[in-house]
Amino acid sequence: MNQTVLDAIYQRRSIRDYTGTPVEPDKLREIVRAGSWAPSGLNNQPWRFVTISRRRVIDQLAGLTRYSHIIKGAPALIAVYLDRQEMYNEVKDHQAAGACLQNMLLAAEALDLGAVWLGEILNRQTEVNQLLELAAHYQLMAVIALGYPAHRGQKSQRKPLAELLINEI
Amino acid sequence: MNQTVLDAIYQRRSIRDYTGTPVEPDKLREIVRAGSWAPSGLNNQPWRFVTISRRRVIDQLAGLTRYSHIIKGAPALIAVYLDRQEMYNEVKDHQAAGACLQNMLLAAEALDLGAVWLGEILNRQTEVNQLLELAAHYQLMAVIALGYPAHRGQKSQRKPLAELLINEI
Repeated sequence: MNQTVLDAIYQRRSIRDYTGTPVEPDKLREIVRAGSWAPSGLNNQPWRFVTISRRRVIDQLAGLTRYSHIIKGAPALIAVYLDRQEMYNEVKDHQAAGACLQNMLLAAEALDLGAVWLGEILNRQTEVNQLLELAAHYQLMAVIALGYPAHRGQKSQRKPLAELLINEI
Repeated sequence: MNQTVLDAIYQRRSIRDYTGTPVEPDKLREIVRAGSWAPSGLNNQPWRFVTISRRRVIDQLAGLTRYSHIIKGAPALIAVYLDRQEMYNEVKDHQAAGACLQNMLLAAEALDLGAVWLGEILNRQTEVNQLLELAAHYQLMAVIALGYPAHRGQKSQRKPLAELLINEI
């Protein structure tokens, strides 16, 4: 039994405050690689990524969401996309993106970083694509903000298992 | 840095062959709990679960998919659902289900089990709901088949990072 992996799953938190320390480009690539090892339907691997560390671009993206303070305070972002040309089923490809994102969040913590999955920015996905100079066949799935955590030990809550586990047959 | 977690992400495989050893109910609950610790939009936790170990039900479900040999050979299944009454956004809730599923697959391996995410059975989701006696507001996301692996060391492949990482800004 690998308790370390279970602990990582239970102790992961959405981290929204970061120190000013830059994130090493190798760590950003490692997080993308971890995302790519998620499973996908027919192993179609529809995910694509843009890593962003340039301050000017981060600040421009901050202007496209209600959560601009989080993005402005982040030393790095990773925009996660699906390539529509590689997709085969909306529901399953969106699920695959979610699996990919979860790997990335776990990998970020494993690399001593903190990260948060931002979805509200999807309301402005056309402008995000323009800003990142991406063709329309790239569909934004989420933006991950990340950096070294300004603090740890954040609390989070989940519904009790009895409420989630409908039946044991 | 936590190399154990990264290794778990890279070494996870879809396991489709199992020994006849039953899966302990406590392990099934632990996998569900791990799933529930995925992030969800607004922390809405739309996921619901049914664990299945009864042979008759497993065999009936096997009749609802092209991959019946995998299900028939599995000592346990977990059906993963979204509760439509808890959903707030189709894309984001489907992504959340994917994040939840990935946690479950990683947890299964951490518990020395092997698992595979089955999606093709969604074609027969109405019949799955009938068989599991679930109301229509439960939307099937996937079935995980699991058990102790009959063998390990399976290979898998991913596209090179250069193909997935569109840009580093």
